Amino acid sequence: MSILIRGGTVVTAEQSFRADVYCENGIVAAVEDGFTAPASAEVVDAGGMYVMPGGIDPHTHMELPFMGTVASEDFFTGTSAGAAGGTTTIIDFVIPSPQQSLIEAYKQWRSWGEKAATDYSFHVAVTWWSDQVREEMGVLTREHGVNSFKHFMAYKGAIMVDDGVLLNSFARAQELGALCTVHAENGDAVFHLQKKMLDQGITGPEGHALSRPPQVEGEAAQRAIAIANVLGAPVYIVHVSTEQATQAIARARAAGHRVFGEVLAQQLVIDESVYQHPNWQTAAAYVMSPPFRAKHHQDALWAGLTSGNLQTTATDHCCFCAPQKAAGRDNFTKIPNGTGGIEDRMSVLWHHGVGTGRLTPNEFVRITSTNCAQIFNLHPRKGTVQVGADADLVIWDPEGTRTISAKTHHQNVDFNIYEGMEVKGLARHTLSQGKLVWTDGDLRTVRGAGRYIDRPCFPPVFKAIDLYNDLHKPVGVDREVATAVTP
Amino acid sequence: MSILIRGGTVVTAEQSFRADVYCENGIVAAVEDGFTAPASAEVVDAGGMYVMPGGIDPHTHMELPFMGTVASEDFFTGTSAGAAGGTTTIIDFVIPSPQQSLIEAYKQWRSWGEKAATDYSFHVAVTWWSDQVREEMGVLTREHGVNSFKHFMAYKGAIMVDDGVLLNSFARAQELGALCTVHAENGDAVFHLQKKMLDQGITGPEGHALSRPPQVEGEAAQRAIAIANVLGAPVYIVHVSTEQATQAIARARAAGHRVFGEVLAQQLVIDESVYQHPNWQTAAAYVMSPPFRAKHHQDALWAGLTSGNLQTTATDHCCFCAPQKAAGRDNFTKIPNGTGGIEDRMSVLWHHGVGTGRLTPNEFVRITSTNCAQIFNLHPRKGTVQVGADADLVIWDPEGTRTISAKTHHQNVDFNIYEGMEVKGLARHTLSQGKLVWTDGDLRTVRGAGRYIDRPCFPPVFKAIDLYNDLHKPVGVDREVATAVTP
Amino acid sequence: MSILIRGGTVVTAEQSFRADVYCENGIVAAVEDGFTAPASAEVVDAGGMYVMPGGIDPHTHMELPFMGTVASEDFFTGTSAGAAGGTTTIIDFVIPSPQQSLIEAYKQWRSWGEKAATDYSFHVAVTWWSDQVREEMGVLTREHGVNSFKHFMAYKGAIMVDDGVLLNSFARAQELGALCTVHAENGDAVFHLQKKMLDQGITGPEGHALSRPPQVEGEAAQRAIAIANVLGAPVYIVHVSTEQATQAIARARAAGHRVFGEVLAQQLVIDESVYQHPNWQTAAAYVMSPPFRAKHHQDALWAGLTSGNLQTTATDHCCFCAPQKAAGRDNFTKIPNGTGGIEDRMSVLWHHGVGTGRLTPNEFVRITSTNCAQIFNLHPRKGTVQVGADADLVIWDPEGTRTISAKTHHQNVDFNIYEGMEVKGLARHTLSQGKLVWTDGDLRTVRGAGRYIDRPCFPPVFKAIDLYNDLHKPVGVDREVATAVTP
Amino acid sequence: MSILIRGGTVVTAEQSFRADVYCENGIVAAVEDGFTAPASAEVVDAGGMYVMPGGIDPHTHMELPFMGTVASEDFFTGTSAGAAGGTTTIIDFVIPSPQQSLIEAYKQWRSWGEKAATDYSFHVAVTWWSDQVREEMGVLTREHGVNSFKHFMAYKGAIMVDDGVLLNSFARAQELGALCTVHAENGDAVFHLQKKMLDQGITGPEGHALSRPPQVEGEAAQRAIAIANVLGAPVYIVHVSTEQATQAIARARAAGHRVFGEVLAQQLVIDESVYQHPNWQTAAAYVMSPPFRAKHHQDALWAGLTSGNLQTTATDHCCFCAPQKAAGRDNFTKIPNGTGGIEDRMSVLWHHGVGTGRLTPNEFVRITSTNCAQIFNLHPRKGTVQVGADADLVIWDPEGTRTISAKTHHQNVDFNIYEGMEVKGLARHTLSQGKLVWTDGDLRTVRGAGRYIDRPCFPPVFKAIDLYNDLHKPVGVDREVATAVTP
Ligand SMILES: [Zn+2]
Ligand SMILES: [Zn+2]
Ligand SMILES: [Zn+2]
Ligand SMILES: [Zn+2]
Ligand SMILES: [Zn+2]
Ligand SMILES: [Zn+2]
Ligand SMILES: [Zn+2]
Ligand SMILES: [Zn+2]
Repeated sequence: MSILIRGGTVVTAEQSFRADVYCENGIVAAVEDGFTAPASAEVVDAGGMYVMPGGIDPHTHMELPFMGTVASEDFFTGTSAGAAGGTTTIIDFVIPSPQQSLIEAYKQWRSWGEKAATDYSFHVAVTWWSDQVREEMGVLTREHGVNSFKHFMAYKGAIMVDDGVLLNSFARAQELGALCTVHAENGDAVFHLQKKMLDQGITGPEGHALSRPPQVEGEAAQRAIAIANVLGAPVYIVHVSTEQATQAIARARAAGHRVFGEVLAQQLVIDESVYQHPNWQTAAAYVMSPPFRAKHHQDALWAGLTSGNLQTTATDHCCFCAPQKAAGRDNFTKIPNGTGGIEDRMSVLWHHGVGTGRLTPNEFVRITSTNCAQIFNLHPRKGTVQVGADADLVIWDPEGTRTISAKTHHQNVDFNIYEGMEVKGLARHTLSQGKLVWTDGDLRTVRGAGRYIDRPCFPPVFKAIDLYNDLHKPVGVDREVATAVTP
Repeated sequence: MSILIRGGTVVTAEQSFRADVYCENGIVAAVEDGFTAPASAEVVDAGGMYVMPGGIDPHTHMELPFMGTVASEDFFTGTSAGAAGGTTTIIDFVIPSPQQSLIEAYKQWRSWGEKAATDYSFHVAVTWWSDQVREEMGVLTREHGVNSFKHFMAYKGAIMVDDGVLLNSFARAQELGALCTVHAENGDAVFHLQKKMLDQGITGPEGHALSRPPQVEGEAAQRAIAIANVLGAPVYIVHVSTEQATQAIARARAAGHRVFGEVLAQQLVIDESVYQHPNWQTAAAYVMSPPFRAKHHQDALWAGLTSGNLQTTATDHCCFCAPQKAAGRDNFTKIPNGTGGIEDRMSVLWHHGVGTGRLTPNEFVRITSTNCAQIFNLHPRKGTVQVGADADLVIWDPEGTRTISAKTHHQNVDFNIYEGMEVKGLARHTLSQGKLVWTDGDLRTVRGAGRYIDRPCFPPVFKAIDLYNDLHKPVGVDREVATAVTP
Repeated sequence: MSILIRGGTVVTAEQSFRADVYCENGIVAAVEDGFTAPASAEVVDAGGMYVMPGGIDPHTHMELPFMGTVASEDFFTGTSAGAAGGTTTIIDFVIPSPQQSLIEAYKQWRSWGEKAATDYSFHVAVTWWSDQVREEMGVLTREHGVNSFKHFMAYKGAIMVDDGVLLNSFARAQELGALCTVHAENGDAVFHLQKKMLDQGITGPEGHALSRPPQVEGEAAQRAIAIANVLGAPVYIVHVSTEQATQAIARARAAGHRVFGEVLAQQLVIDESVYQHPNWQTAAAYVMSPPFRAKHHQDALWAGLTSGNLQTTATDHCCFCAPQKAAGRDNFTKIPNGTGGIEDRMSVLWHHGVGTGRLTPNEFVRITSTNCAQIFNLHPRKGTVQVGADADLVIWDPEGTRTISAKTHHQNVDFNIYEGMEVKGLARHTLSQGKLVWTDGDLRTVRGAGRYIDRPCFPPVFKAIDLYNDLHKPVGVDREVATAVTP
Repeated sequence: MSILIRGGTVVTAEQSFRADVYCENGIVAAVEDGFTAPASAEVVDAGGMYVMPGGIDPHTHMELPFMGTVASEDFFTGTSAGAAGGTTTIIDFVIPSPQQSLIEAYKQWRSWGEKAATDYSFHVAVTWWSDQVREEMGVLTREHGVNSFKHFMAYKGAIMVDDGVLLNSFARAQELGALCTVHAENGDAVFHLQKKMLDQGITGPEGHALSRPPQVEGEAAQRAIAIANVLGAPVYIVHVSTEQATQAIARARAAGHRVFGEVLAQQLVIDESVYQHPNWQTAAAYVMSPPFRAKHHQDALWAGLTSGNLQTTATDHCCFCAPQKAAGRDNFTKIPNGTGGIEDRMSVLWHHGVGTGRLTPNEFVRITSTNCAQIFNLHPRKGTVQVGADADLVIWDPEGTRTISAKTHHQNVDFNIYEGMEVKGLARHTLSQGKLVWTDGDLRTVRGAGRYIDRPCFPPVFKAIDLYNDLHKPVGVDREVATAVTP
């Protein structure tokens, strides 16, 4: 089983160069200009195209049970749609119920994940605290390849945790060499404002945005950073959507703290005006948290990517169809939160990023794949094109164009938030584990072909942090000695 | 009962000018150069001196029951000590226990306050939430002259409130036209770090500072501001001690929000090195929250006063004697938190502020008296020198010097945090209600002579805010109309 | 000659209160509720109105010779129009040509100023440097009541000065106790961009804005502040129009520096879209420097006023009629720079500031009058309502409305930048030197009635700064001693 | 000529992995664990060591004629010392005199450079402006492999340029696809303050620092960025030494601008107290521009590296011996500016960076080599370890220790600014062009073995910027059309 990608330009986060890429047994076996492959090798013509590491989406929710329903996209359909767009790995979320065993929930999600068509991994959410949780965090890191834990600062009364839990969990993860991530919205404020909007008679989707103003996110991001900071821990903010949160991250980084930020492709190009749509169903389709924002936030997010203050791009892919969204027909707080987009992330970022001069092709690779692989310690197995790496590749046609539409997409949802957007730049072929799973419009993904990927703890940044913390440990005053010395 | 202050320079927040000040029946009756007073009037020679509004200390805790003991300074001794230093009004705090009626607590504090020698008023703390609390906030504003409510974001397990309470209380106060104030420290983080220090064997007073690092304050200040901000409410941060909190306030103000900050005189001149003192008792004497900070924070605080980002200066006067502090001999978390300083605030600020060129004399008046009077709606009855105002005055000798010491101070505590500090600039005479209560070293205060001062709601800033909020109310989408219009 | 303003509410920067105001011989003689005036006194009914200090406009250019023509508004017509709008004092600019004697220019402007109807004063520009200039700065402060000097960082090849001149002039002014002000735009950048726009064929008024982007102002503001800062001098930035410059000022203030900023009423409410106007004449009428900006800058400017980071409001009143503007018909760099607005400043600020809840009435007084009087050391003669102050007053009708129009205005220019704007809040009566110069629509100003106002040096802030600088003087290393001490 | 580096851990900016590195004909021919080299290959044992790309120092001044003397280190001795410390490439500066032909100066420096022992390249300074300069910039980029131009904002009266020159040069370089760099200090301010210090009798080296306070650098950095920004050009700030300049860069980056910053190793670890040294000669030895700073700036610089706001580390290696420094015995302005350090940069950064947990080993490679190679378009020929790259390598011993001293260093200067500093982490072997030039303490560099390296224009970032600028070109208003449309 071997394949030769011939005549393309390899693009990594660091450089671009002419080379053929030869894959064998799911692994990149050669990256070399004019490589002579065995005659048996399948050949893919990459002339005029870019050969890049497959996209990694660090934030998806396939078949998530949420708000009384279940996300319509499952691990097979979701990873397949990803493959059609050039994404070859996802990191999804195990979300235990409060009081539920983390291991039990983890196993549940693992069983759901088995249908995935491409490789996948799991963050595990900490939604409550106890000695058992502390213990199970250890088990997950030692035995199950988990190196990141998620925390919800919103969804009061459900999975939201308070600062006490954040402190305990962040401290525990730090011991384990695992990264903490947060959904940063002040859940108390959201709860208060939801009630206020409803009291004022605002029941439509616009109430969703009005009850989650930018400060609600900025505050929580700032708080999570401060909490990580007093513990000397790194922290990763998922789906940063506001200037305020971006600035909080930039300030922390400029002060030397190891803080990471993720941005969703959709937040870079869609703004809050969608909630004013006269058609309820359309407006409701855009209900996600954090909500779409006023246009000027987009500038801050793009600049965050250019400057390196934000490192990764994701989708928070979490699909609900119209009948599911309809649960909130009379009360926006009951609209299931989530939008799709895993299939379109790469095209949207290329078109609006590389196509506008905001990003170089190398930066595109960095923010769609490499940074994510490094932060979550999948690198260099994932996130680059080099001998020995997994043959998860996308052959990118920078001149190809397509019009995004629910009519033609492969996502299992009846709405596309980018409906009608014409983009230039698309995945012409996608390889997962060295096999063509998407080629010239033909989706060939196989249910269950994806593998669960272990992610070890203690990536290099953690070792540096531990050393730093060790050198800056608090020290007590020895008053016996002291008193003896000072009269 | 009349008195003529002759030959001085009147200094207000706005201007300095030669004038005699004549007081009758406790009220300023004339401010006029060369005023001819009735022959019966007592005459105070103010030649070479400044005649200024008496200091207002917006943050004291007389005879506070706290951490298992009671603050040693009572309303009589405390206000007397204040008078000796030029302070003629305090705003103390009613602090109900969680579940206690606010009215009941208020009455308790009123009864304690009756022994005060100078005028006083009360902020009321909101330490829990219920419909009763909401109701009683209304009663306090309507019937008891309360226009400010206090919230503790620290002291977990005791009087700390969570964000839900902040939101409810801020929203309620906004309706009532009352100002919310916060003690800004993340109580969960403090709790976590206290445990961590004790676990590491750090039990001395240095552990107090180590468990309350600057970010803990910065975070909470930022959060309180964000919460106020989403409600369109103003907010006042008490005892700002860090660069981080000062910057949070400055950022909010620069964005147009009505945010106020108070700084303690001691935080401007004393730094964290006190906790390294080899003598436990000395180190413990400085235990207060927030703790003393690294020296560079002082620059930020002074600049906050100069720039107007911080408006008021206070003491958080809360005295505990050595035997009381000894409760935490083996565990810093049990040392009663608090330091004295009401007697020295004005001298310390003059010496280190005006005496160094950081403040003009007018700015000194503004930050020791006028701003406080305006923010808490006591102005122009208090906080200025003008006809009709209360004759609460200090005759300030800018050339007078004294050495601060527990041996000579009038505070009812066995330690002075400024021990040995030589200051230039002191209260030569102090008038409360038109009577000399401190004159040339003679303290003549009378137990019970002070009056409780009602503070009405809705100062001008609140009216502006209400108008602004009204013009920026959230609006729902009328989808029947909308749908009709759009096909 | 006496007049009683009866039944109004006096509004100062500090407070609002019911009082009659009695004026005699051009001076406020009494501010007292129910004052009994002599029977001979003229009575003005101020029922339902606010009695405020007359507006002070710190930035006007009456009959300025500029860009080959002369501003159409002279000192008589300009101050008269000001009176009709509630402004009773202006500070105009003496602008010597490079190489011209400052004294000579000063005398020229004094002669022009003699026709003024209300009081006026002069900043003097430093447009070149020599020992003579240094000397004449001293003469102006000692003998001519000048306490502020202006510097143009733009207008390359004309009156622009380089950093060397700024340094010499700022240092000299600091010795003299005078305040330096700057027009902050990087003149080299403007020059470069003007050429670039013309080269690209952009010759219309939109080229004016395109050649003066916000960074050009932000940079210069930052630079002027840095230069002042290394000298330990205060500085005042005229016509701040951008978020960037506002932030530069806010940052400097937050660091404790004495930096002041002025904003033009028009920049608060008019945006850059005017330069897209299809009618050349209309677009050209808005050509001024700095130009009108994108809308979001207005938020920063309003917040600057609310926060106190910006202190004063002005007009840069500098009128050119259509035939004058036509000089730049084919080349925007030849359009005389300037717009009018002295008559409308107060109404526009009241309507858009107080009327929207951005400002309290007291803050309105502070930013239209008091702060200016204090910064330029005219206070308390100007800028407040108190016994002994000049009887320059405006009786403000908060309910009065008018529609601004060139057809009805009193300004000597054929265009009104606010054309058609309806404002609520207007000057019902204006007093200058205790005389009604504008009353119920009747303009009674008298040519030459205005007085030149001396402004002494060393206001209180300068004394504080001098003390501070003195305590922070650079000190050399005494190496003879040092070497002796260290082996 | 081949060499095998066996058993080490290859460390690049992106990853660390076990591999042997085989070099042939000056090029890396294989990077492979367990590589079988030809028997003829020399073998270097890298067990327990890191194999990293050789350091690149983007800022040196070998044999520079400056301030009336010539830097003592020439291209041979300097590059040799570099090799002894693990640095294998330098980018030095051609500095034409004002009015001198750039080509002529370039040729002069090329002739001096011929003695270099390792590879080198040249930035060319623009010290004046004319059509000839514009033309020669083109020639240098097209024919001489120059892709970066340097500008001095300081050294008034010598090589300083004003903003007009910056604008012309930046715009020209932008056309050419070349990067502009600046020495950011406000030369007018330095000149003014130098005179002020001398006037106050401060003639010693401490006067050097006092006349170049941090704001002088912060201002200039901000200005250079603003100028680049209005032109849509990237900019690179050399030797950033202050919090102010770091913040200016961070702000610009956070706003999406392509701004780069370089920091000198010495500024990260040495502070301004050196100028207080009682021994004149010692204090003078530290005279360089910008000067050493107060300690807190170091935190900002380290954080700049961690956050990625600063990208490169350099030395500004420019050596003057004691007799040369003595020229300023009575006047600090005559002390030749410059310090050495090329030999110690890598060890100092490793010890204080990696050894303290501030940097990971990968980040160390990034800031000592990779970023520099990418920014100046030497990558991947330089700056990484991969097949096809130049075999410029350092075998780094993380456990090796040495004590830095002028007695043992290889730099041609009589003083070492790190004298006595013990560092852990050192270059055990260095390869240049595949040859061991430094091995176990044996320096084997060959005079003239170094090659001049062409650097092509238009690295990827420039292509992105050009696209962006093109899409954001200013557009004029077509008033004929417009007027036709609008009545
Ligand atoms: Zn989320
Ligand atoms: Zn999510
Ligand atoms: Zn407190
Ligand atoms: Zn308190
Ligand atoms: Zn101007
Ligand atoms: Zn002007
Ligand atoms: Zn330099
Ligand atoms: Zn240099």
